[in-house]
Amino acid sequence: MTLRFTKGHGTHNDFVLVADTRGDLDLTPARVRHLADRRGGIGGDGVIRLAPTAAVARAGEAAADAVLADEPGAIWFMDYRNSDGTVAEMCGNGVRVFAAFAESLGLVDLDGGDELALGTRGGVKRVRKEPNGWYAVDMGPWSYPGGQDAVAAGADAAVMVAGWDAPRPALSVDLGNPHTVVALSRSAELDALDLTREPAVDPPPPHGTNVELVVPLGEEPAPDGGVVGRVRMRVHERGVGETQSCGTGACAAALAVRAWASAGADPDQVPTTWFVEVPGGEVRVRLLDGGHVELAGPAELVFSGEVELPQ
Amino acid sequence: MTLRFTKGHGTHNDFVLVADTRGDLDLTPARVRHLADRRGGIGGDGVIRLAPTAAVARAGEAAADAVLADEPGAIWFMDYRNSDGTVAEMCGNGVRVFAAFAESLGLVDLDGGDELALGTRGGVKRVRKEPNGWYAVDMGPWSYPGGQDAVAAGADAAVMVAGWDAPRPALSVDLGNPHTVVALSRSAELDALDLTREPAVDPPPPHGTNVELVVPLGEEPAPDGGVVGRVRMRVHERGVGETQSCGTGACAAALAVRAWASAGADPDQVPTTWFVEVPGGEVRVRLLDGGHVELAGPAELVFSGEVELPQ
Repeated sequence: MTLRFTKGHGTHNDFVLVADTRGDLDLTPARVRHLADRRGGIGGDGVIRLAPTAAVARAGEAAADAVLADEPGAIWFMDYRNSDGTVAEMCGNGVRVFAAFAESLGLVDLDGGDELALGTRGGVKRVRKEPNGWYAVDMGPWSYPGGQDAVAAGADAAVMVAGWDAPRPALSVDLGNPHTVVALSRSAELDALDLTREPAVDPPPPHGTNVELVVPLGEEPAPDGGVVGRVRMRVHERGVGETQSCGTGACAAALAVRAWASAGADPDQVPTTWFVEVPGGEVRVRLLDGGHVELAGPAELVFSGEVELPQ
Repeated sequence: MTLRFTKGHGTHNDFVLVADTRGDLDLTPARVRHLADRRGGIGGDGVIRLAPTAAVARAGEAAADAVLADEPGAIWFMDYRNSDGTVAEMCGNGVRVFAAFAESLGLVDLDGGDELALGTRGGVKRVRKEPNGWYAVDMGPWSYPGGQDAVAAGADAAVMVAGWDAPRPALSVDLGNPHTVVALSRSAELDALDLTREPAVDPPPPHGTNVELVVPLGEEPAPDGGVVGRVRMRVHERGVGETQSCGTGACAAALAVRAWASAGADPDQVPTTWFVEVPGGEVRVRLLDGGHVELAGPAELVFSGEVELPQ
């Protein structure tokens, strides 16, 4: 069976994209692993199938029923698979690339001002396109699991990275998935970190955690008045290792730096927007009303082709 | 500029292939790096341009002139580039994939019994196809740099791998590029090796060396009578790190095991053919008359597509 595909990435978090507009493609784990294989197949951090939400619901996924109940206009569903063939709920960088893919297929006109509401296993996501070509996604609610005590102390955990003499204080941030953020003072120290081994977190989170190492780079004037913050980060993703980019990790980094910047500061002077420099590029994180956070960044479609699918 | 390409691999040593049948494609280092970029581009260990040998000669490459002087029938040239954009002489796995690519373009009919003579910066290479679909390449001359003394002793160097208590004896083999081969007794030990760090070789080779760690698996009856040998190996490639496959490395592994098997044995009982199991698959190494060695193995074309080339 010959399959048409497109390859794309968001800040070098990369995906094989497949348009299944009839919703009848059987994306078995073996097929996903082949598509994501960087040497024997196409290669990517994940595989994204674009399918009708109604077809995904008919195939038995309760999450797609919930999406249609919440937003009947979410007619397209992002069926995200990890490179090992397992199913995933959501991917912040993947949503942007999904939106660019839907545009390339003529399914939505984001330059014309449309907002794309799409279904995911993590619920409805909304994407809009900005004048510079970036895609902005409402990532939903977030929290500091340690509450105000943790924010006041600046930490509710400790992280040990290979080569350090002692653990360092860290702040937990929840974005639907767990994050633990550690501040470093200098970019050179960030560059020199050994993240080939998984950082140790104390207390050990029951389901593991993503660990972000961040260097706050200060604040700069915003075009609309006020200030924006700037942060550099590297990330060790739970179960994966160091990656070029992690969407929820960028949000967690910004939210942790915001907590640290809030200590004793005038709340009006603390930025609600941050640019986060990740190894694979740059994204923007912004606090939204209602306790949500928005992630914006680029999405690139690199090439399209055809591949033979295994049985 | 839109470029049509094909992606292929030989035992998971993978390449981006470009048909430049007019010989006028300017493959700048920046373009090679983009094509070979696994996240931002297509991805591969190298980029292979198929171009007329005469055009490569006209562009000023003396190696192409030499190819035409040696074999006027070598009308196609394998212009091999490393993923970092630099030029390389030759790649044993790449030659097989080049042959499969030339077949897919209709430039040669190897199933019909043709032999393909192609130009490379390492001279003319000859490829034929076997009934099982494998491609066999004459890799040219080889030698033991330590001579008969080294063969009699079984070693002329010592190798230290991370985690070992002490260095182990090793045999040098030259295939146009340098190799140092170490024998292990058990597959479990091979699997457990830490090759994330470069093995240390004593005496240090002036231009570095590829290091092969091999487990001889004994001998088995050959279909045509006689015996064939079997070897498992892992390889640390000079300047690259551990790879899934190394064509000259597989040859070196077989030639070292042959030297060790020859000690005190009846020369007629020592195999001249070995199957070498590499992490990315299996290849066959065979002694040819005239001091040459042949490498045979699979070549797969995985997908084709179009990509925008940077300026």
